[in-house]
Amino acid sequence: MSGVFSQADHYYMARALQLAEKGLYTTDPNPRVGCVIVRDEQVVGEGAHLRAGEPHAEIHALKAAGEQAQGATAYVTLEPCSHTGRTGPCAVALRDANVARVVIAMVDPNPQVSGRGIGILEEGGIEVKVGLLESQARALNPGFIARMSQQRPFVRLKMAMSLDGRTAMGSGESQWITGPEARCHVQRLRARSSAILSGVESIIMDDSRLTLRADQLQLDNAEEVVRRQPLRVILDTRLRLPLAAACLSEPGRTLIITTSDHAAEKRQRLTQAGAEVQVLPAGSDGRIDLVAMLQWLAENEQVNELLVETGATLAGAMLDAELVDELQLFVAPTLLGGEARPLFALPGLSRMADQRRLIIHDMRAVGRDWRIIASPSASGDSKVP
Amino acid sequence: MSGVFSQADHYYMARALQLAEKGLYTTDPNPRVGCVIVRDEQVVGEGAHLRAGEPHAEIHALKAAGEQAQGATAYVTLEPCSHTGRTGPCAVALRDANVARVVIAMVDPNPQVSGRGIGILEEGGIEVKVGLLESQARALNPGFIARMSQQRPFVRLKMAMSLDGRTAMGSGESQWITGPEARCHVQRLRARSSAILSGVESIIMDDSRLTLRADQLQLDNAEEVVRRQPLRVILDTRLRLPLAAACLSEPGRTLIITTSDHAAEKRQRLTQAGAEVQVLPAGSDGRIDLVAMLQWLAENEQVNELLVETGATLAGAMLDAELVDELQLFVAPTLLGGEARPLFALPGLSRMADQRRLIIHDMRAVGRDWRIIASPSASGDSKVP
Repeated sequence: MSGVFSQADHYYMARALQLAEKGLYTTDPNPRVGCVIVRDEQVVGEGAHLRAGEPHAEIHALKAAGEQAQGATAYVTLEPCSHTGRTGPCAVALRDANVARVVIAMVDPNPQVSGRGIGILEEGGIEVKVGLLESQARALNPGFIARMSQQRPFVRLKMAMSLDGRTAMGSGESQWITGPEARCHVQRLRARSSAILSGVESIIMDDSRLTLRADQLQLDNAEEVVRRQPLRVILDTRLRLPLAAACLSEPGRTLIITTSDHAAEKRQRLTQAGAEVQVLPAGSDGRIDLVAMLQWLAENEQVNELLVETGATLAGAMLDAELVDELQLFVAPTLLGGEARPLFALPGLSRMADQRRLIIHDMRAVGRDWRIIASPSASGDSKVP
Repeated sequence: MSGVFSQADHYYMARALQLAEKGLYTTDPNPRVGCVIVRDEQVVGEGAHLRAGEPHAEIHALKAAGEQAQGATAYVTLEPCSHTGRTGPCAVALRDANVARVVIAMVDPNPQVSGRGIGILEEGGIEVKVGLLESQARALNPGFIARMSQQRPFVRLKMAMSLDGRTAMGSGESQWITGPEARCHVQRLRARSSAILSGVESIIMDDSRLTLRADQLQLDNAEEVVRRQPLRVILDTRLRLPLAAACLSEPGRTLIITTSDHAAEKRQRLTQAGAEVQVLPAGSDGRIDLVAMLQWLAENEQVNELLVETGATLAGAMLDAELVDELQLFVAPTLLGGEARPLFALPGLSRMADQRRLIIHDMRAVGRDWRIIASPSASGDSKVP
């Protein structure tokens, strides 16, 4: 289906990608999608999907184009849908508007519907081309793609560390070691995530709120963005979360995942304090089965991007289980010394041969700090069943 | 003495700085100096100081200029010397060549002779201007400047670490974790240094050779550069260096610094094995007094730039004593985990308030690794008596 794309095709698809990005912080759990309709070398309609429950990008663009959609080319960053939602299938709407050609960046990542939208268009006699700027389109929706194709979220692990790889003093004494610019970056990582995952130990230690704060986001639409607080997910095998934990009195939901409902009384009190409690299976080590937890979040909470903000133990366990897709390390220009807390506990890692190799994608200054984006180097094993 | 410099002045001084850099790996213990002589907007002579014992930059440039030096402007990166060396004082040579004007990037850093060369020139009726591109000129000779003005070397601490701030496995198992490009950078750091400092513990652990290797330098003049092997300095309070240590059979000198000569027999055997042994005072903790050690190296071994390549304990002690001028961290994209060896032991650092802040000057990719250049953030204390 792919073919050679013209310079104009690239130009308009790049514009559609820009439009899609407008929904970065607001479309959850839907994907970010943009659409541009072009006739006679003129843009006659543009659209972006901005909020779940509102029209898809194609519908906005068709509405703007009106009659001029006839014979036009539509550029869409994701295959138009084939299902009947609030506004009907977008593929049908494009067909009925008599567009002549549809250029699509990537097919629908859901294998059960992938190709159906294209089928509707082609059956309607429309020329369809697929694959233009596909990797850019995929980068817009890593979580939606992971959930649709692998039934799990895209997992992004954020850590803040000193230059010598430490997160807090040995005593547990801790404070923000990174500056305001790094904090703004972290707020935006939260804002694009469906959920934030933490271990109960680090909540007890830091009493983190795990919320979006409008004043730190530095976005024009910050007030709108913070209306959707990402789901706070706390792994708490023994239900140790204090009833007075700050996150329980913040806007948005707090979901505690535990392994057994034996502590019925504590569970009830946590529920009264504002938390939801979900029992999930334990692994052979008695801890929460991380793979099952991720699958559960994808299936039941439609979690696309999961931001992990936690301590060395859970972060190390996620890395160990090869469940981390992306690492974002914020590095403060300071040294905390050899007695301070490590970045990752990786128990059992005692031989050089077992070191965990990473690929560094980006390293740049963020205020007086530095941000490193990396991903675990692919091993021979697949990550998820 | 400084004044306003023209565009042409900047251009020729920049050229003189480039010439000076030719001596980066070969002038030790002399400073790197370049000189350009210009008459009627034409370069009539250029010179660089390339090797101790050979003519200074000004003498090379005057020789090239010949008669044309009369009425010319000479650009020199360092104040011309006033002492009678192998080729006589350069200030006298410039005066006798009847140059009309001398532009100098920086005055001599030795307070005992600073300004004397300028005096000779001015007494000869020559116009002298000082301070053009001074910071660039200072950056060429950080070690020479430190030795002349503070009677101690410029101390550069090089460490190789994983992204989580670890240098080796907990067991001590170790291997090069950085790639060949980083190793080439380290070789060049060695090549510009007068001496390399290590603790006996890390020599025992890694059996490091601490030598220059022509094939890893990737320099056109690598064969010439390796003829001067930097002095290897090993701190060894109890004379534990094995007689079979690899560095003892390498070209160049190995100097063991210890605190008492009680172990006369071991000392004799080490001397027979090729080492030199120097007794220096111990500090109140029984270890070698680091400040005294640095002063001794500057005074007795003319050490300009000292490269510290060692383990967490000595590196931490140097940082703790505020004796490190520059940190070069080579960061490999790998994780070694929380049980691996720390970058710096900083015993006693247990409160956030005591963290050691750094200033990061540069962070860049070096092959698949990254290099961070940083310096300790200035505290209220002065570094050296």
